[in-house]
Amino acid sequence: MNILITDSVDRIFIDLLEQHNINYKYDNSIIVDDVLQIIHRFDGIIIRNRLNLNKSFLNKVKGLKFIARYGSGMESIDLETAKQLKIKCFNSSSGNANSVAEHTTGLLLCLLHNINKSMKELHTHRWDREGNRGIELEGKTIAIIGYGTTGSLFAKKLMSFNCNIIAYDKYKFDYGNSIIKESNMNTIYNEADVISFHVPLNTETTHLLNKKFIAKMKKPFYLLNTSRGGVVSNNDLIHGLKEKQIIGAGLDVIENENKGFNDIKIDGNFNYLLNCDNVILTPHIAGLSKEANRKLSEVLIKKILELK
Amino acid sequence: MNILITDSVDRIFIDLLEQHNINYKYDNSIIVDDVLQIIHRFDGIIIRNRLNLNKSFLNKVKGLKFIARYGSGMESIDLETAKQLKIKCFNSSSGNANSVAEHTTGLLLCLLHNINKSMKELHTHRWDREGNRGIELEGKTIAIIGYGTTGSLFAKKLMSFNCNIIAYDKYKFDYGNSIIKESNMNTIYNEADVISFHVPLNTETTHLLNKKFIAKMKKPFYLLNTSRGGVVSNNDLIHGLKEKQIIGAGLDVIENENKGFNDIKIDGNFNYLLNCDNVILTPHIAGLSKEANRKLSEVLIKKILELK
Repeated sequence: MNILITDSVDRIFIDLLEQHNINYKYDNSIIVDDVLQIIHRFDGIIIRNRLNLNKSFLNKVKGLKFIARYGSGMESIDLETAKQLKIKCFNSSSGNANSVAEHTTGLLLCLLHNINKSMKELHTHRWDREGNRGIELEGKTIAIIGYGTTGSLFAKKLMSFNCNIIAYDKYKFDYGNSIIKESNMNTIYNEADVISFHVPLNTETTHLLNKKFIAKMKKPFYLLNTSRGGVVSNNDLIHGLKEKQIIGAGLDVIENENKGFNDIKIDGNFNYLLNCDNVILTPHIAGLSKEANRKLSEVLIKKILELK
Repeated sequence: MNILITDSVDRIFIDLLEQHNINYKYDNSIIVDDVLQIIHRFDGIIIRNRLNLNKSFLNKVKGLKFIARYGSGMESIDLETAKQLKIKCFNSSSGNANSVAEHTTGLLLCLLHNINKSMKELHTHRWDREGNRGIELEGKTIAIIGYGTTGSLFAKKLMSFNCNIIAYDKYKFDYGNSIIKESNMNTIYNEADVISFHVPLNTETTHLLNKKFIAKMKKPFYLLNTSRGGVVSNNDLIHGLKEKQIIGAGLDVIENENKGFNDIKIDGNFNYLLNCDNVILTPHIAGLSKEANRKLSEVLIKKILELK
């Protein structure tokens, strides 16, 4: 088996390929045109989010057996076309789901208990206890939108906090249990105190959090986004914060990211959010724990070996 | 029944007293000398941490039936003398334990996942993913020192994170179960990745975290303190951080607080900790959630009514 690696992967992944006698070429800055020149020599390619594997690309690599995503999000692949061409596409989301679930819980507790806000004030030597009374997670209703590998693991983390967990997934059914309530969007609009997105980015989910969504929410709510920046409209989020319909937001991802997530476009919206006491921003690191790095490699190798 | 309230309590507490036809005098700035002038008219007093109820005070108020702490820490009462004088002393720790347990979990996840550190960098528009890879809580060993109301509730929060939970309490036994391992200090020194203090402040626990403690730890570790500032020696903590024996610290309490916790003494140690990327400081707010305010009142009234 021959594999073309087109993006940065951990050394562990290379070691695992070698252990299993899988041939590879590793070029983490290769461009699409050069991929097309050599792709006929490979059975599969490893990607992250850098290259755009659109319809035109896929039609030119018809013999390819598989596209493997080192990570979770598959938005850079035209999955419909790949399916028609029988190119197998898979990710390794179970490798970084725990890291994302922990990070999301951290963002939520940080927001509710004013951890970031009060520490920021300490930097000006302001020791304010009364002004930083927190809100307990216990008893609140947390809505998980997208109940895949990561959404379901986040639900699991919440289970020891005695909160109400409701979940909605457009494409999943019969996953509910005595603690996690399978739900619909109407119930979420009516009951949620916290909204957390765990969806892939596609035409259905782009700007899922917009003015319409906010208007439907019965109570002011906290927003969590550790999925993709494009799922939340910055403009509408900021409007919601200004109108106090959104109490606070924990964002690991943001519209301002470039396609490879390794840089951001600074604009007025970004600076506004950065300076809100009730917004926590982190640089797309939720799934990036040291342990996830190893687990992503192990999950992906296992899936590749199954194809042999 | 007549009650003297000597510190700030929530309006809910006053409402509950009135509902139960309990007479009260509310003076949240009264000084000890004035308490002594009028105390003969009261069955009990409500305190927080402001007044010092030492041996001399207690000997002068012999007829007093009870001292009730609105909150958890009893360090301002000479409990031994009170016991001899048959003055009942009780707190309402079950009212704010959940808030503390959530806050402690938040501090831990924040530290492990670089939430504060990476956000601080974003303020200088530094978007660094690789440098902010987190550490997962899953699989780590968390040592809880002091297994009372709060320590045990913190253990409960950790139960959904698939970590190893070991606990030690000098005065508690037979509380272990299949998930929470009852332990001793030797096991903690050998195995812990995280140390979390949930002890009262007294002569046994003052500077419990000192150079000796740090030297006994087999692995570099994370430190959490949501109990009392005096439990951790700032000097030795800073030494441990500089020597990288302590990987990071989440502190809701600090030696620099005054007796009422409503102000701090700024010194070099405080500023040093404030500026460490791997230290999170919050202003003694862990037990101060809005819900805890109500619960403290309810717990305390219930205990007072039982004395009637």
